Amino acid sequence: MFPIILSILILSTTSNAAVQDFCVADLKAAAGPTGYSCKNPATVTIDDFIFSGFRKPGNTSNTIKTAVTPASADQFPGVNGLGISVARLETEQGGLVPLHSHPGATEIAIVTQGSLVAGFISSANTVYYKSLEEGDTIVFPEGLLHFLFNSGNGTAKAIFSFSSSNPRTQLTSFALFGNDLPSDIVGKVTFLDAEVVKKYKGLLGGSR
Amino acid sequence: MFPIILSILILSTTSNAAVQDFCVADLKAAAGPTGYSCKNPATVTIDDFIFSGFRKPGNTSNTIKTAVTPASADQFPGVNGLGISVARLETEQGGLVPLHSHPGATEIAIVTQGSLVAGFISSANTVYYKSLEEGDTIVFPEGLLHFLFNSGNGTAKAIFSFSSSNPRTQLTSFALFGNDLPSDIVGKVTFLDAEVVKKYKGLLGGSR
Amino acid sequence: MFPIILSILILSTTSNAAVQDFCVADLKAAAGPTGYSCKNPATVTIDDFIFSGFRKPGNTSNTIKTAVTPASADQFPGVNGLGISVARLETEQGGLVPLHSHPGATEIAIVTQGSLVAGFISSANTVYYKSLEEGDTIVFPEGLLHFLFNSGNGTAKAIFSFSSSNPRTQLTSFALFGNDLPSDIVGKVTFLDAEVVKKYKGLLGGSR
Amino acid sequence: MFPIILSILILSTTSNAAVQDFCVADLKAAAGPTGYSCKNPATVTIDDFIFSGFRKPGNTSNTIKTAVTPASADQFPGVNGLGISVARLETEQGGLVPLHSHPGATEIAIVTQGSLVAGFISSANTVYYKSLEEGDTIVFPEGLLHFLFNSGNGTAKAIFSFSSSNPRTQLTSFALFGNDLPSDIVGKVTFLDAEVVKKYKGLLGGSR
Amino acid sequence: MFPIILSILILSTTSNAAVQDFCVADLKAAAGPTGYSCKNPATVTIDDFIFSGFRKPGNTSNTIKTAVTPASADQFPGVNGLGISVARLETEQGGLVPLHSHPGATEIAIVTQGSLVAGFISSANTVYYKSLEEGDTIVFPEGLLHFLFNSGNGTAKAIFSFSSSNPRTQLTSFALFGNDLPSDIVGKVTFLDAEVVKKYKGLLGGSR
Amino acid sequence: MFPIILSILILSTTSNAAVQDFCVADLKAAAGPTGYSCKNPATVTIDDFIFSGFRKPGNTSNTIKTAVTPASADQFPGVNGLGISVARLETEQGGLVPLHSHPGATEIAIVTQGSLVAGFISSANTVYYKSLEEGDTIVFPEGLLHFLFNSGNGTAKAIFSFSSSNPRTQLTSFALFGNDLPSDIVGKVTFLDAEVVKKYKGLLGGSR
Repeated sequence: MFPIILSILILSTTSNAAVQDFCVADLKAAAGPTGYSCKNPATVTIDDFIFSGFRKPGNTSNTIKTAVTPASADQFPGVNGLGISVARLETEQGGLVPLHSHPGATEIAIVTQGSLVAGFISSANTVYYKSLEEGDTIVFPEGLLHFLFNSGNGTAKAIFSFSSSNPRTQLTSFALFGNDLPSDIVGKVTFLDAEVVKKYKGLLGGSR
Repeated sequence: MFPIILSILILSTTSNAAVQDFCVADLKAAAGPTGYSCKNPATVTIDDFIFSGFRKPGNTSNTIKTAVTPASADQFPGVNGLGISVARLETEQGGLVPLHSHPGATEIAIVTQGSLVAGFISSANTVYYKSLEEGDTIVFPEGLLHFLFNSGNGTAKAIFSFSSSNPRTQLTSFALFGNDLPSDIVGKVTFLDAEVVKKYKGLLGGSR
Repeated sequence: MFPIILSILILSTTSNAAVQDFCVADLKAAAGPTGYSCKNPATVTIDDFIFSGFRKPGNTSNTIKTAVTPASADQFPGVNGLGISVARLETEQGGLVPLHSHPGATEIAIVTQGSLVAGFISSANTVYYKSLEEGDTIVFPEGLLHFLFNSGNGTAKAIFSFSSSNPRTQLTSFALFGNDLPSDIVGKVTFLDAEVVKKYKGLLGGSR
Repeated sequence: MFPIILSILILSTTSNAAVQDFCVADLKAAAGPTGYSCKNPATVTIDDFIFSGFRKPGNTSNTIKTAVTPASADQFPGVNGLGISVARLETEQGGLVPLHSHPGATEIAIVTQGSLVAGFISSANTVYYKSLEEGDTIVFPEGLLHFLFNSGNGTAKAIFSFSSSNPRTQLTSFALFGNDLPSDIVGKVTFLDAEVVKKYKGLLGGSR
Repeated sequence: MFPIILSILILSTTSNAAVQDFCVADLKAAAGPTGYSCKNPATVTIDDFIFSGFRKPGNTSNTIKTAVTPASADQFPGVNGLGISVARLETEQGGLVPLHSHPGATEIAIVTQGSLVAGFISSANTVYYKSLEEGDTIVFPEGLLHFLFNSGNGTAKAIFSFSSSNPRTQLTSFALFGNDLPSDIVGKVTFLDAEVVKKYKGLLGGSR
Repeated sequence: MFPIILSILILSTTSNAAVQDFCVADLKAAAGPTGYSCKNPATVTIDDFIFSGFRKPGNTSNTIKTAVTPASADQFPGVNGLGISVARLETEQGGLVPLHSHPGATEIAIVTQGSLVAGFISSANTVYYKSLEEGDTIVFPEGLLHFLFNSGNGTAKAIFSFSSSNPRTQLTSFALFGNDLPSDIVGKVTFLDAEVVKKYKGLLGGSR
């Protein structure tokens, strides 16, 4: 069957073609506007396409009783350049995911255990929210503020899917109070009183 | 506080702006190259952004012992135009998802129960596959052939996430044998013998 | 010169081709995921490509002493589908643009009069801000929280440019306090005290 | 084989899914920013995906001794939304394609008969051009001015391929002289003398 | 004319601007998600934009009596980043292009000599195919399985155009039988009998 | 509040995430098809997002009495990869911006002082133009020829906004006459007489 094997060499391009099927992130090389540079395809293996960080439970021993385990290009190099990534939510009774947005990514959340209240706020300030049961799935449109909290009696879990290989997260309260933006500026651009700003700066790790 | 309320009217646009935050599919209107037309935003509710089809188990009483429940724009109008959708896999012992591709979508699969062997084939005909345990996550790059099968003793489940609001599925064996493409053509373009083609045409619902 | 005139008919397509040079918004027809439907090109005139809303000054007689006049697809149908729009800022002494984000649009601001402090907050909660003089120009990357305030003694003005024909605006404080999201939920997902939430709900027009 | 046939119904979506494989242009419906609305997929046939306009020769009996036969979405509805289209060039001895650009499309030209000189001009005003023989292929990057002319003794032919389903054509000399833009304006913005402008307005069908 | 020459320096950017008109592939540098890095524009010449590989005939002395000569970014660096590429088909009497897909690219085929039967299969398993004569043109929508075979008495030729600078090719039978994917897995995910799989593994160069 | 600070480490990714919020151009590194490589985010400061080149007036002492000051990625590295940039126009009485196009970018022009006539020409050779006063805003759709000239008694100024971080400029008369494209070719592809071509080659700095 030598001739057919030959024909495939004619029909397909050389080993470099594999670069185009995927672009596994080379986390140490320079990035560009659309993601990381590609690892040499000759060194790519199945393990570049597999993420095992969801095997063990996350650590929910924190104030929000919640762990979000991301599987974005930084942790899961195989998704680089492919416009998609995932994460896992675990939240104990009373736990929550604070209000936040993903600049440039839509999110879908699938409840895999327990009950969650989930919602988002449109640019017209309309609130869309509902209590979700196991199996319920919600979409948070790109760039809009959204939140989730455990509304049941036990642990709740969800799978998050994002329309970006690196859906960064802007947590509203940490953006407001968790940095060195001077308190008077924070107050001015949010209408919050100086004392409120200072109190939450103290609570959330901000300064000035 | 009348003046501040007034200012928001100046700063944001009118009710039509909501059209741009999302474009809930109007399944009865004409579609365009990027998806369905948008439902009138004044009639959109939280239920347009929620899919409840994963609440009940799928029906795995079929030859492949498998149910794939899609939540694409057709079933989940809120994802229209947002470049993302999901699906759920349930597969009994011995069950499988036949070889297939999604034209124009990357897929991420997260194993939520049991064990699955999952793999994909590059355009250079290299095979990338591995046995996955609960929590393992794999990415199948856009447009490439891939498969999954239950490799454990019980039911296996997974969540699929796609980089498209409508990741269609081209199942290889059904594309080859499950339609009216004449058997001699099928044989010619696949190198399969006439008798093989005819046998599988019979098995998979094809004619001619 | 009949033959050359004839040749242009051969070389270019018919009147419908104009649809592709531009897609002036038909604000009354159904929209799709990428914008409004196109007005019939035979009825398009130069006025569809011109916006005159910046001729007269905006009304800054409000609590924030500021007017933002948008020229997005809703006001300026000629930009529909072209991935760009603009707006004008006028802000009196002591005026400000509250903290906000544009879901899915980058913004460039050019100071055309006076002094403004402008800044944005990254997803890593790093703050980038500076005092700008007339002629200074700043870019606020897509989807990130940003703000501006008048830091001089007179009126300040700026031109805003957006990488979207409809850069909606999500004003943080109005998203938090200017709607009917129950106060206990607002408090839970922002860590703000109930009394703080209720106070600002009152101030910014929210209920519940 | 009933169960396998059943399973395919579970795995794939309903007839509407075909809309997403392709979006054959409905030339009579409203267009949107990304192309024409889709024809009802139930009425689509193989003929929507085939263009037969290259079967017969074009008419080169014109001043430029050239025929360009387009197969864009207007003539070839199957390419709508797919980001590609083609055209055929036939040019007699001494014939030419005048200087022009395609707003928003890259072009590849493959010489299938004869000899052509082909070139383009960069935004830095560098000229890239060469004499091409049968089989030679050239790329004209998106939006840049380019030209071709027959440099041999007989008919030359080429196939053009475009990175757009509707690569409109802006012919420089017709844009300058083939419309009602007043001659003084044409002269002002091109530095051409009034008499030159008027002469070519006369030749190329312009007025005023 | 010194002042006008000066003005062009003000109006256009420096030599680096050429990088943006085109991005000729530097095949030895790292690639990114959207293609190869750009060659230094100062070293770019007209030859980077010309491909001469179609000057001589391809070698059709193989089992499928067919030569496909690609002009993608690997062979034709000038198309890098421009979303388009081409290829040439030559197929002797009885020759064929086996069933395959291009992950992420639409293809247009123009018959330039002879007769070809060409077709594609939708994700709904509908087959669209027809016999084409010289001049006939067909579009194969993105990512779908398609095929061509010589249906005439002599050599047939075609030009292929792709909506990608690197339209990789996944040949179904080689993906199934031309690698080391274990035969039992191939059988399981295609429903093919073990003996069929092994026979074609032998014929098409596969192992295991 | 240690636990909440801890939770943010869990919820957001490490310092590398900043790469994704923005991609400040590293002007000395290799570029790719979508722009420059990103500067190391650890070295990015607010000054990377600010352009001060509009603080001082441009030099209008040239033949066209006009200065266009660009703030594209080359001058304003913070806009790299963000799909937007700006420029400033100053034009004395009698001044003008010659006919030109931006390959791949739409432009919006806002008149900030004086009077300008502005217009563009469609691919159907229809001219859309009008006299604009201060505050008037016009959009020039992607890739189409357009022009502006001062129609008042004093200096006119405008702000330009582009839908690209590097909107190159192709000035028609310089593309025709300001390079070494042989005069006979220029004449052939524009229908201009040899003497006209030679005269303007002399005026605009061209040779041959």
